[in-house]
Amino acid sequence: MAYDPGNIFAKILRGELPAHRVYEDDRALAFLDIMPRSTGHALVIPKAAARNLLDVAPDDLAYVAQVAQRIARAQVKAFDADGISVHQFNETAGGQVVFHLHVHVIPRFEGVDLLPPQSKMEAPEVLAENAARLKAALEN
Amino acid sequence: MAYDPGNIFAKILRGELPAHRVYEDDRALAFLDIMPRSTGHALVIPKAAARNLLDVAPDDLAYVAQVAQRIARAQVKAFDADGISVHQFNETAGGQVVFHLHVHVIPRFEGVDLLPPQSKMEAPEVLAENAARLKAALEN
Repeated sequence: MAYDPGNIFAKILRGELPAHRVYEDDRALAFLDIMPRSTGHALVIPKAAARNLLDVAPDDLAYVAQVAQRIARAQVKAFDADGISVHQFNETAGGQVVFHLHVHVIPRFEGVDLLPPQSKMEAPEVLAENAARLKAALEN
Repeated sequence: MAYDPGNIFAKILRGELPAHRVYEDDRALAFLDIMPRSTGHALVIPKAAARNLLDVAPDDLAYVAQVAQRIARAQVKAFDADGISVHQFNETAGGQVVFHLHVHVIPRFEGVDLLPPQSKMEAPEVLAENAARLKAALEN
């Protein structure tokens, strides 16, 4: 399947849409999901165009995985998370909604179920606060 | 948290427990989940000791991600999958049950929900047949 440069994550990468960015370098971007399934739910994406796991360049995939690890470690610190769930969905049947490769990195807390996907838009001030906490943890 | 070499995936790596292996090299192993959530559900693990995403060496994580990509592509071919869902769970709160890092690579089919985790032990002959199909797809 072809890559559609009109997807919303491509627009975030081009600065055409805002995002609560927590990490960025020349190859990857991490930002908060605006409909988080738990506190601090982040997404990691490659800057290179890739629809999903099936077409991403192996080097970009490896780099995204390593950024996801850094995000996960920072989430444990920032939110005192008890665990981390990672989800990565490919094609509609696989659960993919936005067709730019992304890895969900989701803090987990004992006894707390995840919210359903896309269930509730989080307040911008909450996202800003959580992004600040996660950025601070990434820098320490 | 420490790595426990008595976990069942460590036993599979040492050959102390059987598995329906589909791919193996000096750094990673892929085999079928014996309680698959869909046809061809595979697990990819590093050979190096790692409890989960939080402690794995970044190079091993990158390699496991790349093997997972090869498995996903082969699953699409072998099972005519419409999509792929990837899950990776860390610590009990994150959904982890076996404490050796593993990536679930799960073929998806339009209109078919995943079975719940650990819901049903698959028949060995079905696993053997699916492993053979996946191996053949990996070799082509």
